[in-house]
Amino acid sequence: MARIALDVMGGDHAPEAPVAGALLALQELDPSHVLQLVGRSAVVRAVLDRQLVDASPLVRQAAERLVLIDADEVVEMTDKPSVAVRGKPNSSMAVGLRLQAEGASDAFVSAGNTGAQMAASTFILRLHPGLSRPAIGTVLPTATQPVVVLDAGANVDCAAAELVQFARLGHVYARDILGRANPAVGLLSIGEEAEKGNAAVKEAHQQLIGAGLNFIGNVEGRDIPAGRCDRGPVDVVVCDGFTGNVLLKLYEGVAPMLFGLLAAAGVPKEQLKQALGVLDYAKYGGAPLLGVKGVSIICHGKSSPEAIKNGVLVGLRAVESRMSHHIGEQLGA
Amino acid sequence: MARIALDVMGGDHAPEAPVAGALLALQELDPSHVLQLVGRSAVVRAVLDRQLVDASPLVRQAAERLVLIDADEVVEMTDKPSVAVRGKPNSSMAVGLRLQAEGASDAFVSAGNTGAQMAASTFILRLHPGLSRPAIGTVLPTATQPVVVLDAGANVDCAAAELVQFARLGHVYARDILGRANPAVGLLSIGEEAEKGNAAVKEAHQQLIGAGLNFIGNVEGRDIPAGRCDRGPVDVVVCDGFTGNVLLKLYEGVAPMLFGLLAAAGVPKEQLKQALGVLDYAKYGGAPLLGVKGVSIICHGKSSPEAIKNGVLVGLRAVESRMSHHIGEQLGA
Repeated sequence: MARIALDVMGGDHAPEAPVAGALLALQELDPSHVLQLVGRSAVVRAVLDRQLVDASPLVRQAAERLVLIDADEVVEMTDKPSVAVRGKPNSSMAVGLRLQAEGASDAFVSAGNTGAQMAASTFILRLHPGLSRPAIGTVLPTATQPVVVLDAGANVDCAAAELVQFARLGHVYARDILGRANPAVGLLSIGEEAEKGNAAVKEAHQQLIGAGLNFIGNVEGRDIPAGRCDRGPVDVVVCDGFTGNVLLKLYEGVAPMLFGLLAAAGVPKEQLKQALGVLDYAKYGGAPLLGVKGVSIICHGKSSPEAIKNGVLVGLRAVESRMSHHIGEQLGA
Repeated sequence: MARIALDVMGGDHAPEAPVAGALLALQELDPSHVLQLVGRSAVVRAVLDRQLVDASPLVRQAAERLVLIDADEVVEMTDKPSVAVRGKPNSSMAVGLRLQAEGASDAFVSAGNTGAQMAASTFILRLHPGLSRPAIGTVLPTATQPVVVLDAGANVDCAAAELVQFARLGHVYARDILGRANPAVGLLSIGEEAEKGNAAVKEAHQQLIGAGLNFIGNVEGRDIPAGRCDRGPVDVVVCDGFTGNVLLKLYEGVAPMLFGLLAAAGVPKEQLKQALGVLDYAKYGGAPLLGVKGVSIICHGKSSPEAIKNGVLVGLRAVESRMSHHIGEQLGA
């Protein structure tokens, strides 16, 4: 049995999308699990009632299992990260995370302000020993199996030791969340030889050789869309948060460009949508914030109900696999 | 009148592809220009004769304008960069570049070992004052106009001052080679606000504000395939060589992945090829090595005759626009 707190006030389409996502999740979750909707209860109640008007009897019955938890403040998308920690102590974010810190919840899921969620998660859940900041792992669709890329934006200036920590975090992520038995960890660089890369990457390469992971050496930009390098499949790609953020946004931007070119050339849009469906981020749900003592799932601000539902399922998987516990073990290794 | 030296021994498909590329170039170049084929003359002669067997009388006549320059050593793709400088003084690379240093040629074009070409170009042509290393600018196709990304791999650990130099080099490139009147220069970062980025990027942002360029602020990964950001079109994207190399290889790798997905979904391959033709790097020819006193054009190792021809045309454009002279002026500004 897991208790998952969902931030109903977070995201570009809140509160409608999170509420709709919760209803979708209920239909897939075993009834033993509890879904906690955190936000302004009056607002949440109203949205819920509206969405239930046309719902099936089964969904209405399931909705009775939802637990509403009142939080009268809201962290806006434009608020500074510190606001979530100090400025708005009764925000849905702070309340949802405190619930977990106090042992009344097992996971927190939000499509709200990412910087604020990171700050609040770090402050309220705290970090495993040895970490100075949490990392974001993002799952990217590839020609073969999805690949975890981290860090995806939280840590911009990274020393070699931090890159090695990302490798450890990614290893646990790929094993616990994606179910890879012995994740192949690659270090992003500009050539496969150990002496290629910037100073931090070259040093990290040496440290990773003895880190007890399935380190497959350097991988290059082209190996990410392929999902594999010359030495075989890749499960985890390690990079600093600056490079990670740039490449994720680039990756997101290429599909629409090609979509436009192909549509202009007369390829039917339906055929394009179907073929490129594998690239839809909504399928991959949220990204666990890695390194906090607990579970905090970051969803895309633009999350649809489907994406929110998948974020909740990722949260459940993180709880059931004991991901945070394994991260503590891996960092102490 | 320009004299362009082509390395006939460089590239995965040498000497056939460079020779074929030279014949293509001849058909487009004004007869006042001279094409110098640098390599083992006996080999070049034999390949040329073979390719001319089925050529039209016009091409055969044009071929008589080719100047063969003998160079009996070859820099292999696997040679270390230093080989081109010290180990093989009579390589086609060293001979072609010395020709320019001695005033007997105006541009050098090669699809050979890139590291060796950079080292030899730096050593033989020398750098404009103020630079410690040359940079590579790569033209990327986008949904709108092509964009110059630099540095694309030569300089991995960059201080802010180097990023500012790249901005100056990119400005001249976009104006002289791509014909943009007042190139919009963006700094690649992880958010559009000036305070977003790693330490070098944040400092470079401040320095670029007063650099006398059309600096449009930070751009993000997604702005590259779009060819524009919220503030309008982008002509130049400035980044360190590590990020640049990763993103170029990623960009190259995404199209084949999508091609595979779409072909598997039944989109006819011919339609795909036609629609995605804009992404063919061969169209954009070579990349000028920026910062050397002279013209050294780096072509992709896999260059087809078409790509080599375009490399020659880029070389001509660099000579005619006086790109190197303008770079000297810009760096002294």
